[in-house]
Amino acid sequence: MKILIDCFGGDRSPLANVEGALLALQDFADLTVVLTGDEAVLKTCLQGRKYDPARVEIVHAPEVIGCDEKPIDAVRLKKESSMIKAIRLLRDSDDYSAMVSTGSTGALVAAALTRIGRVKGVIRPAFCPILPTMNGGIVGICDTGANVEVTEEHLRQFAIMSSLYMEYVFKVEKPRIALLNVGKEAEKGDEIRQKAYRMLQETPEINFVGNMESRDLLSGNYDVVVADGFSGNVLVKTTEGTALELLKKLKKDIYSRTIYKIGAALMSRMFKEEKEFMNYQNYGGSVLLGTSKTVVKGHGSSNASSVRKCVWQAYNLEQSGMQERMEEIIAKYEHYEY
Amino acid sequence: MKILIDCFGGDRSPLANVEGALLALQDFADLTVVLTGDEAVLKTCLQGRKYDPARVEIVHAPEVIGCDEKPIDAVRLKKESSMIKAIRLLRDSDDYSAMVSTGSTGALVAAALTRIGRVKGVIRPAFCPILPTMNGGIVGICDTGANVEVTEEHLRQFAIMSSLYMEYVFKVEKPRIALLNVGKEAEKGDEIRQKAYRMLQETPEINFVGNMESRDLLSGNYDVVVADGFSGNVLVKTTEGTALELLKKLKKDIYSRTIYKIGAALMSRMFKEEKEFMNYQNYGGSVLLGTSKTVVKGHGSSNASSVRKCVWQAYNLEQSGMQERMEEIIAKYEHYEY
Repeated sequence: MKILIDCFGGDRSPLANVEGALLALQDFADLTVVLTGDEAVLKTCLQGRKYDPARVEIVHAPEVIGCDEKPIDAVRLKKESSMIKAIRLLRDSDDYSAMVSTGSTGALVAAALTRIGRVKGVIRPAFCPILPTMNGGIVGICDTGANVEVTEEHLRQFAIMSSLYMEYVFKVEKPRIALLNVGKEAEKGDEIRQKAYRMLQETPEINFVGNMESRDLLSGNYDVVVADGFSGNVLVKTTEGTALELLKKLKKDIYSRTIYKIGAALMSRMFKEEKEFMNYQNYGGSVLLGTSKTVVKGHGSSNASSVRKCVWQAYNLEQSGMQERMEEIIAKYEHYEY
Repeated sequence: MKILIDCFGGDRSPLANVEGALLALQDFADLTVVLTGDEAVLKTCLQGRKYDPARVEIVHAPEVIGCDEKPIDAVRLKKESSMIKAIRLLRDSDDYSAMVSTGSTGALVAAALTRIGRVKGVIRPAFCPILPTMNGGIVGICDTGANVEVTEEHLRQFAIMSSLYMEYVFKVEKPRIALLNVGKEAEKGDEIRQKAYRMLQETPEINFVGNMESRDLLSGNYDVVVADGFSGNVLVKTTEGTALELLKKLKKDIYSRTIYKIGAALMSRMFKEEKEFMNYQNYGGSVLLGTSKTVVKGHGSSNASSVRKCVWQAYNLEQSGMQERMEEIIAKYEHYEY
């Protein structure tokens, strides 16, 4: 399997992307990574590293899409960028199965939606990042930003796609699917939420367990939370932000008194584990569900191990046969383009 | 000043409400609290406590609205409930200036919107709870659930109302107002957000500082974040939920090894302070901004000190002259009923 790695555009690009790609080669014997970006720079990054050269290809792409560029313009004008080159190869050739990028989310969504086809029947692809829960499990959130406006039909498709993702890639049996809402009761939220609630109840292919209030995200009681891209984005970024800010505060407070420093020294291993636990780098990227070929968006600040995990997600998804099943289920439900 | 206290419907009602009301008497010499609820029960709660009987009144209201009752039905049918009785007294008599409730949010919103008038020009009242920031300040979020669907005009009014609230009640100079969005750039989000961004820029009465991503809520860089009630609800509940879950996890992990327990013992004062810092009870309730008389919604799990803080908020808001200023600013901007 060949997976494209867009090596530019992230905070730690290209080094983290190149290192992550090489690490991923250890995970799958039949994997080849195809690095896109400035060839000279990529070659320098590879210099002195141990890897099988038959399993690493470089596609020269001299341009880079910045995070503050207008997505639509970037996609249209920067054809020679590492991201768009990867997208086009993915579209044009069956040699390539998937791609991973840590660059501009907006540009990646725009490029994927306009250049890569969708799984038959899917109205709108959606992101599904993964967070750790407090009992040692994981929870997916779908969507978190690919669609800031949705209908109830979109929400049902997000539920179907993300349920399959948890089942096929993370081996969760009968994933418990919840709808993000302002209260638990069926009649909570706006009309879209109320209609989506009823539609999800009438979809036996998924294990819908009702509305979830955002404070219960990390409880371990849910495997996937379905949301419009706007509030899903708020959900995931608030969780990350609060955890980070609290850790920062703890650290600052520990340094304020000697006795705290001594106490913290005794607990250093625990604190290290907490930090690792909350480090979103360990949970890979957001898969864009519903595109005909897999696109994984890594965090802008992804390090090598995070990029490796993104490749792991892309590989497993492509291997899983999930998209055929997705097409099958989605075909069962009539849908309307809004 | 007479403030009504709905003494039933919260998790710790009526005791926490009665105790909180009595504590509030210490804060303001000219305050009288009017307790609504079952008279016999309230009298039992008051028994043996020290307080000036001239400053505590009881209004008998034998019914209670439960949290799972349909708001509209509860408001219409439970006229003898502690909440609706308080709302009606507030509406009917100028003797009463404000009310505090820890009961059903849905019923309280429905009752306040249908029974209490709005400040002239206000289209939709909105909640504005307060959270602590990591640098020791506070941040308000407006709205967090009174309006699950909004227009750009609503968002501008939320900004005006909450800016005044921070300025008049919490003495924040030129409050920094942000718009909750999925990215910092002006063109982010849906059409409503994009329009609201431009409108907020064109409102010199407020100090609009741009879009805020949810991960920055606790940074201390903002005084108020303006949002639709749905995503604002997600924002505030995710913050509370993540903080609580993390503290729970820390506690569990500390108990897993003796050396951690020893370390934690040395840091016990710090942990206590962290817990207090994150305890939302310390930050009072959500004021419903834009009603002609002040309604404060305390957390369902409010304890006595939280109820006391709610009364503090209600008293200060009513004293501040803020509502006159609100009317003045809002009158400057034409608005349309959608």
